[in-house]
Amino acid sequence: MANKIRIGILGASGYTGADLIRLALRHPAMEIVLLTANTYAGKPMAEVFPHLGFARLPDLITVEAAEWGEVDAVFCGLPHGTTQEIAAKVLGEHPALKFIDMSADFRLDDAETYAKWYGHPHQALHLQPEAVYGLTEHYREKIAAARLVACPGCYPTAALLALIPPVAAGLIDADDIIIDAKSGITGAGRGLKQNLLFSEAGEGLSPYSIASHRHAPEIEQELGKAAGKALMVNFTPHLIPMSRGELCTSYAKLVGGASADDVRAALARRYEGEPFVHVMGKGGLPKTQDVRGSNHVEIGVFADRIPGRVIIISTIDNLVKGSAGQAIQNFNLMFGLPETEGLMQVAMFP
Amino acid sequence: MANKIRIGILGASGYTGADLIRLALRHPAMEIVLLTANTYAGKPMAEVFPHLGFARLPDLITVEAAEWGEVDAVFCGLPHGTTQEIAAKVLGEHPALKFIDMSADFRLDDAETYAKWYGHPHQALHLQPEAVYGLTEHYREKIAAARLVACPGCYPTAALLALIPPVAAGLIDADDIIIDAKSGITGAGRGLKQNLLFSEAGEGLSPYSIASHRHAPEIEQELGKAAGKALMVNFTPHLIPMSRGELCTSYAKLVGGASADDVRAALARRYEGEPFVHVMGKGGLPKTQDVRGSNHVEIGVFADRIPGRVIIISTIDNLVKGSAGQAIQNFNLMFGLPETEGLMQVAMFP
Amino acid sequence: MANKIRIGILGASGYTGADLIRLALRHPAMEIVLLTANTYAGKPMAEVFPHLGFARLPDLITVEAAEWGEVDAVFCGLPHGTTQEIAAKVLGEHPALKFIDMSADFRLDDAETYAKWYGHPHQALHLQPEAVYGLTEHYREKIAAARLVACPGCYPTAALLALIPPVAAGLIDADDIIIDAKSGITGAGRGLKQNLLFSEAGEGLSPYSIASHRHAPEIEQELGKAAGKALMVNFTPHLIPMSRGELCTSYAKLVGGASADDVRAALARRYEGEPFVHVMGKGGLPKTQDVRGSNHVEIGVFADRIPGRVIIISTIDNLVKGSAGQAIQNFNLMFGLPETEGLMQVAMFP
Amino acid sequence: MANKIRIGILGASGYTGADLIRLALRHPAMEIVLLTANTYAGKPMAEVFPHLGFARLPDLITVEAAEWGEVDAVFCGLPHGTTQEIAAKVLGEHPALKFIDMSADFRLDDAETYAKWYGHPHQALHLQPEAVYGLTEHYREKIAAARLVACPGCYPTAALLALIPPVAAGLIDADDIIIDAKSGITGAGRGLKQNLLFSEAGEGLSPYSIASHRHAPEIEQELGKAAGKALMVNFTPHLIPMSRGELCTSYAKLVGGASADDVRAALARRYEGEPFVHVMGKGGLPKTQDVRGSNHVEIGVFADRIPGRVIIISTIDNLVKGSAGQAIQNFNLMFGLPETEGLMQVAMFP
Repeated sequence: MANKIRIGILGASGYTGADLIRLALRHPAMEIVLLTANTYAGKPMAEVFPHLGFARLPDLITVEAAEWGEVDAVFCGLPHGTTQEIAAKVLGEHPALKFIDMSADFRLDDAETYAKWYGHPHQALHLQPEAVYGLTEHYREKIAAARLVACPGCYPTAALLALIPPVAAGLIDADDIIIDAKSGITGAGRGLKQNLLFSEAGEGLSPYSIASHRHAPEIEQELGKAAGKALMVNFTPHLIPMSRGELCTSYAKLVGGASADDVRAALARRYEGEPFVHVMGKGGLPKTQDVRGSNHVEIGVFADRIPGRVIIISTIDNLVKGSAGQAIQNFNLMFGLPETEGLMQVAMFP
Repeated sequence: MANKIRIGILGASGYTGADLIRLALRHPAMEIVLLTANTYAGKPMAEVFPHLGFARLPDLITVEAAEWGEVDAVFCGLPHGTTQEIAAKVLGEHPALKFIDMSADFRLDDAETYAKWYGHPHQALHLQPEAVYGLTEHYREKIAAARLVACPGCYPTAALLALIPPVAAGLIDADDIIIDAKSGITGAGRGLKQNLLFSEAGEGLSPYSIASHRHAPEIEQELGKAAGKALMVNFTPHLIPMSRGELCTSYAKLVGGASADDVRAALARRYEGEPFVHVMGKGGLPKTQDVRGSNHVEIGVFADRIPGRVIIISTIDNLVKGSAGQAIQNFNLMFGLPETEGLMQVAMFP
Repeated sequence: MANKIRIGILGASGYTGADLIRLALRHPAMEIVLLTANTYAGKPMAEVFPHLGFARLPDLITVEAAEWGEVDAVFCGLPHGTTQEIAAKVLGEHPALKFIDMSADFRLDDAETYAKWYGHPHQALHLQPEAVYGLTEHYREKIAAARLVACPGCYPTAALLALIPPVAAGLIDADDIIIDAKSGITGAGRGLKQNLLFSEAGEGLSPYSIASHRHAPEIEQELGKAAGKALMVNFTPHLIPMSRGELCTSYAKLVGGASADDVRAALARRYEGEPFVHVMGKGGLPKTQDVRGSNHVEIGVFADRIPGRVIIISTIDNLVKGSAGQAIQNFNLMFGLPETEGLMQVAMFP
Repeated sequence: MANKIRIGILGASGYTGADLIRLALRHPAMEIVLLTANTYAGKPMAEVFPHLGFARLPDLITVEAAEWGEVDAVFCGLPHGTTQEIAAKVLGEHPALKFIDMSADFRLDDAETYAKWYGHPHQALHLQPEAVYGLTEHYREKIAAARLVACPGCYPTAALLALIPPVAAGLIDADDIIIDAKSGITGAGRGLKQNLLFSEAGEGLSPYSIASHRHAPEIEQELGKAAGKALMVNFTPHLIPMSRGELCTSYAKLVGGASADDVRAALARRYEGEPFVHVMGKGGLPKTQDVRGSNHVEIGVFADRIPGRVIIISTIDNLVKGSAGQAIQNFNLMFGLPETEGLMQVAMFP
């Protein structure tokens, strides 16, 4: 026990926090020593999440009351816009600490883009340059060396894993990508909003944040790097009547005579040996059911009937590979642990 | 009572049949006199659909046992491929009868296209020329004069209502249309398939029939007429964990300097005064919940962030406007009744 | 149009209000002239319930702004505890008006019982004596003559329809009745509560308000009348992951040598010819699916394996027969209309 | 690896089989060497359960093709009625093997009772006497010494854990127990039945097998042992629109002046220190959500308003503690492993 890594989780009363605790409790090298949730400070976790009441966990406290010296690593699941100041304070006072951010605060390299999309100036400009974008399969070495990792959003995780390889290989037209995205309702958080009530969200489906979702600039930043030029994508999310799961259906045009088979082959090569990213054989249909509760990713590639077009489908569990699971994957790298440590849960089906 | 129109429903044991009965029982001019379902022949409807047990309905019989002379109109919900022969027989023997087909058997003008997509030669070639495609808002006059109406598939209904006007007006590029479609599980029918079990389909989402769904040629036929040339579309359907509802997210490129506002205006003009088709104002988000159980259609239009692109979203209840409701709308026209007769149910929300 | 009955709906922004509007819009004798919802006052209904946007409806106003002189009947769906004062004011000023209350404010004959269960003294004691308990099938004549009808709660409706006849006939022991009740989530209202979020309530089931639910005294009052003595019941409700529907499984002991068949026969006799209450044959299993969206009730009776015990199962749609539908049934009686007017919708399945 | 325990799973294509594999793959002492499923023999698991495709697993074979010498323990998830012969054969030829049966074939001590409820004579009468009923918390020592363990049904597990202690302690009347049980749809298996289709089972609730469910005699056998006399219970199951989870609401009469608090205290004492069985404090409400995917059990106790009556509520995940999880718990005991090995998964919420 003595040599376990002591972790703190900020914003532990949300769904991402709960799923991180679910995974951390089974992680052989982690010890949860700090849980914050300002609205629930002073309460035991069993009151906020009864299903966690079976485990021994510290009570919730405010982020202000945290004793950072007792923590080796911080997972931050605070709402967007509040993390930058806390990261600056914590890393300023405890430079050896590792900070794994699950919020959006350090995902965008460019402070102006951040200000534009999030509506306020960046609060920790000096830290942004050292923040590493935590898309594990694409930034493994940088993450391993980083102190501050900005874990990708759930949609960007699903979209980028599917699209970076063909864009980087020049197989698809980077300027004509359409991402039709579908997410379970946990993706919208635990806030008390009318459209998230069971009787409103159940038995129905709706698009939202059309042409205005904050995950678009994140996808564009990373696809732009793969393409070697600035680009824009069409990104349209939909809310689906299920709790977990996310699926992106991406439409692209093949270039230079490439075929859908070439795209599939490029993806398969790129992710060969990856423990979590699975490129399906011809005809294989990704389903959110196959990855529920797990850190796995399924990618399927299809030729459209219109010549020269390809459809790439990717699916993840938004709370795991799309958030808490990828955060742990990055934590493992940052602490020199096997990357899959604590993450080999089998998907829960049914 | 004496002067009600006597209707028969073929294939009454499926979901479309059940929903047609639900609507027909409240239709002031309809009298249900014939119900067929070969596997359930001899049984009362209460056994096949207990919720219909509260109504007085004829028992189910085989299609062979039907007495066509007692019927003024036939609604056909038989599986694809079996309708053509029956229509030929029935209309041959009873030329004054009206035949409203909800199957796919008469939707494709071109017999070769039919044979290619459905895997067998057309069985009633002589009838195909008189079959009218039953997309009510676009073929009203022809339907009113028809004896044989081929009601559109559910996906084509949602997609075509949204896309015909901008294609016809030359506002979008007809050769670059992507339709990402999502359907509730009744869309897959009542057959005993493993992937339709609650524990398999629930809490999850999956694409299916990618680049091979039989609704694609139907969409292409009708959009092609609007465009004045042959064309192909990308059409990708997904199965959503809800019983009813369908939503198409269509991606297109604006041409000739048109804007998303122009597309919305064209749609609004085209459907002005329509009782069932509602073009939402700027920012209005279609939701399947808003049309559940009703014959209504919601269409929303959005400018993408990428200049020159538009997103058109349309939603219907797949069993109503996507099948039984539109069939009754056509029936009303064919018998000179008010088009909305029996169809003004308010959506059931929640 | 001129001779339609002008109705007002108080508290029109809740689920009960929405379902009342759904039904009222298709009722041939109703004209909706007043809709109140204090938090949404000034807004069009389309904003509060987009699915009602297809209909022509008055905008929402505050209850204070209502012009009572323009209304013939008021349906009241206000939260419990606020209705008494409004009823007193409205009926005081407009004695000819009919007041159909869907809240709990006038259900309990005894003001002390009311005060005990609702935590505050009754605010309209002078009206209580004239309030008629609106369980239509059991108070038909009184309702027809009433000015103020207190419609039963959803659970009492389902439980009492099943239990009054055998209790009244002395077939079951009135002092040993257990009612295990299950409700869809609309039963808990549209309030923003964490346990009603899709991701909390979905895919799970929980009991609530054990031995403390306010529908218990209502059930006891009416069963007590049937038994001719005061009694108590065990009433335990559960929240089920579905939007609509309610099912009561009632356990009782047979007395005087009665059998389950006797109970079934007594129920069948009592409800013979009733348009909405259906006593199933031996072996018939009530399902909420069979009554979804309709005013129908299904009752099934089973012998337990333990001799001398019977299980009575009843199911309704909590928003229809459990609230808005029964309110309209009572309205029909109060205005001398056919009792089934506007209420013969077929259940929506699937 | 060499010293792992080699396990075989018979009937691996059902939901219980899949969940056992999910858990076994993470069990540090298990190695899956044999998977049978006669209808899918010859296929890789990835085809039957794509979510298991990420793991290395043997292909499915017929039970006839199994090489029993290569297996140390067999988990049997075959349909009821087929296990007895196989157990007789396997244990006859390989007496050192451990047989953990998840079917109902060895649960009933009395062969006549078996024959009566299952409709055919017992096929392995010589083995029945050595079969130990695998309700772990109540037969720990016997299980540890057993070669053949008959794991309880899902409903009996939930009901018995809640009821044995108060019955054994004489706190409740053993002759007047009513168990109203609710189960998710996986409880009904993976068979292709119409009532299990998403569009039939979703958004609705129904009772089934009233007074005829085969779990009743099992509950009676074990409660009878606790009571020291033969008894019968009222057991009424319901199908709930969720995939996993089971909740029993048990109604009983207190005897000898006992109170609900006494019952709670007796349960708390009985399960003190148990890793999986959690008796909640006064007012604590069990929810299936809290145990989803885990081996945990929640029990809550409530006084009814009617003096002298108690309500005991218990919840489990039917596939885990109700089947595969309890089987592994027993396996651990049979092989001298820590009882919680491989079973400390946190519930998955949401």
